[in-house]
Amino acid sequence: MKRCLLFVALLISASTLQARGTGDLGVLIERASSSVQIVETSNNTSLKRVAGLGDLSHASVVYSRDARYAYVFGRDGGLSKVDLLDGSIAARRLQSGNSIGGAISQDGRLIAVSNYDPGGVRVFDAHSLEPVADIPATYGDDRARSKVIGLVDAPDDRFVFALWDAGEIWVLDMSDRDRPQVTRYRNIGRQPYDALITGDGRYYIAGLFGEDGMALLDLWNPDRGVRRILSGYGRGEQKLPVYKMPHLEGWAVAGNYAFVPAIGRHEVLLIDMQNWTEAGRIAVHGQPIFVMARPDGRQVWVNFALPDNDTIEVIDTQSLEIVHRLRPGKGVLHMEFEPRGEEVWLSVRDENRVEVYDTRSFERKAAIPASKPSGIFFTARAHRIGL
Amino acid sequence: MKRCLLFVALLISASTLQARGTGDLGVLIERASSSVQIVETSNNTSLKRVAGLGDLSHASVVYSRDARYAYVFGRDGGLSKVDLLDGSIAARRLQSGNSIGGAISQDGRLIAVSNYDPGGVRVFDAHSLEPVADIPATYGDDRARSKVIGLVDAPDDRFVFALWDAGEIWVLDMSDRDRPQVTRYRNIGRQPYDALITGDGRYYIAGLFGEDGMALLDLWNPDRGVRRILSGYGRGEQKLPVYKMPHLEGWAVAGNYAFVPAIGRHEVLLIDMQNWTEAGRIAVHGQPIFVMARPDGRQVWVNFALPDNDTIEVIDTQSLEIVHRLRPGKGVLHMEFEPRGEEVWLSVRDENRVEVYDTRSFERKAAIPASKPSGIFFTARAHRIGL
Repeated sequence: MKRCLLFVALLISASTLQARGTGDLGVLIERASSSVQIVETSNNTSLKRVAGLGDLSHASVVYSRDARYAYVFGRDGGLSKVDLLDGSIAARRLQSGNSIGGAISQDGRLIAVSNYDPGGVRVFDAHSLEPVADIPATYGDDRARSKVIGLVDAPDDRFVFALWDAGEIWVLDMSDRDRPQVTRYRNIGRQPYDALITGDGRYYIAGLFGEDGMALLDLWNPDRGVRRILSGYGRGEQKLPVYKMPHLEGWAVAGNYAFVPAIGRHEVLLIDMQNWTEAGRIAVHGQPIFVMARPDGRQVWVNFALPDNDTIEVIDTQSLEIVHRLRPGKGVLHMEFEPRGEEVWLSVRDENRVEVYDTRSFERKAAIPASKPSGIFFTARAHRIGL
Repeated sequence: MKRCLLFVALLISASTLQARGTGDLGVLIERASSSVQIVETSNNTSLKRVAGLGDLSHASVVYSRDARYAYVFGRDGGLSKVDLLDGSIAARRLQSGNSIGGAISQDGRLIAVSNYDPGGVRVFDAHSLEPVADIPATYGDDRARSKVIGLVDAPDDRFVFALWDAGEIWVLDMSDRDRPQVTRYRNIGRQPYDALITGDGRYYIAGLFGEDGMALLDLWNPDRGVRRILSGYGRGEQKLPVYKMPHLEGWAVAGNYAFVPAIGRHEVLLIDMQNWTEAGRIAVHGQPIFVMARPDGRQVWVNFALPDNDTIEVIDTQSLEIVHRLRPGKGVLHMEFEPRGEEVWLSVRDENRVEVYDTRSFERKAAIPASKPSGIFFTARAHRIGL
């Protein structure tokens, strides 16, 4: 009977651990230790550490539609499916030699990964991680393979991505998983280096490293092709030193305006999304990296490249003024807002901690020890387009 | 030992049942039987029925921030907290004689309910359902109490609602739960009958039954007060027979336009949200009730009042044309899109079933038996403002 009770106690502790809502969970990337921490935002605590995930520099995460599993995309081509309920690795696959992010299809059944080497996109079953499709990014007469960047999901079970070496945008329709369909847009500009899709899944925008401007594809009107916008954007003639390329997926949209990191300049650009022209500039503390809107669009939070990466500035999107400056510590790499915006989490890499701030009072609410933290990703992403 | 095994088997079955992600869950209201069904959208199945929830006509639901609990607001003043993992009623309180919906605060810690009788708003602790605040909707010299309608949450832990009898809008600031602060806006128009807040939590708009037009409060600029908009909207001079008042929370926003049910007319109105004026009208099959946008904003689905409540029409928001008509059966009362929009669920009350459609092919994917189903609510609402 004693043994029975012990067994029962163990079972109870296991089941208590597992049975919980997953809507307030998230993952912190610990890039130096090949691990992630599973966290929750209701009380701002860390629940568990999961190790053995390979090279997590520049790692990113998407979530299963039931918000139970985190798909972690490592730099070394590793694709890991982490069970948030028990911290186990439910599946893992080394799917290429060098990869840079991924996406989950609208229906949640497919995971796509963009690879540098060999250049292309590979698609896996979200449940088993078994291969479903392999899309080599071949181009030109000699069938060279291009690095792929800026992979996002779009409605109708499509994935959209850009080819760095080829200067192309491809739309991959996976609505019939046995018959992947690729639509190629050529000559979109030199060296697309990152891309984003608007929150409604309509506009795909690639930044160009090799020339001024950006490339815009309107997925509601794909027959109109790709057009060049924002010719003042990009490296251009001025050749300013760029310490770190800004992340385009950090674009903030508030009302009709997008708030965009300028490249190499201490400015946030204001873009009028009605006509995709520049509508103004806001002077900021350093070279912006992420420019992210609080979910209600009232504030935009900005972090910076070296030597200013210890600072965050907060812009009021109505007055366009900087209303607050924080100095959390060296190496503020990433920010993630709680889904309804009352708090924001910041990775402070060199201080080995993640900090949580109230976005109204700017008061620090919590600090969580973490080993060289970088990306922070909450499960509410499961329900959004293009993340 | 046999008894031990049996006990263990029971425990295992209980714990297996409970451990799952909650991101793909939802609730269907069964109004005739005082019950709800817990459903999941990954395979489109019903998981469990929960009974004993009182009068559920016109019932609505909000979710806890961890997406584990559904708060069900009944018509009889019943407020029930349903645990989606095991189908139990975690807490229940009969908090008034007659109520009409509720909301959850931005931080997820407070539940507010709007009451007809006695008129006012009561606020409860989201964990325990213990009372936190009682805000009687008193007005005028004789301190009469008004029915309260259109209760929504807004950023900064505020609730906004309107007083039918008083013609007022109140903003209740609960950021300090021990010191509720009310800001009153008087003379906003006669008989506000329902209201909505835009997805960013900025604009609160109340429809007026007693006169033409609507009342708009810009929560980013509350000192500007409430202004009257859309003077052609509402019952006005024409006194058309209105078979059922449209629901304002169904307003669809796509790009800069809001798609709005006309009152008493077979039309959907197009509102330019830049200046809050009418920008066009789309002829539809009947008197629209809910006008809801697919999450990507590309389609708007419309259901209708009697005698046309067997029909759904789908408007393409780019061409403004009706691209599809479905006839699921009598009594199509409510629609809910899956969070990324690939499927939509419809309540078909008089056929005692809920149907699931692919929004791209319009193919019916599933039918779930339900007893006089009305509202459908998915857990992704936990992460949105103003729902």
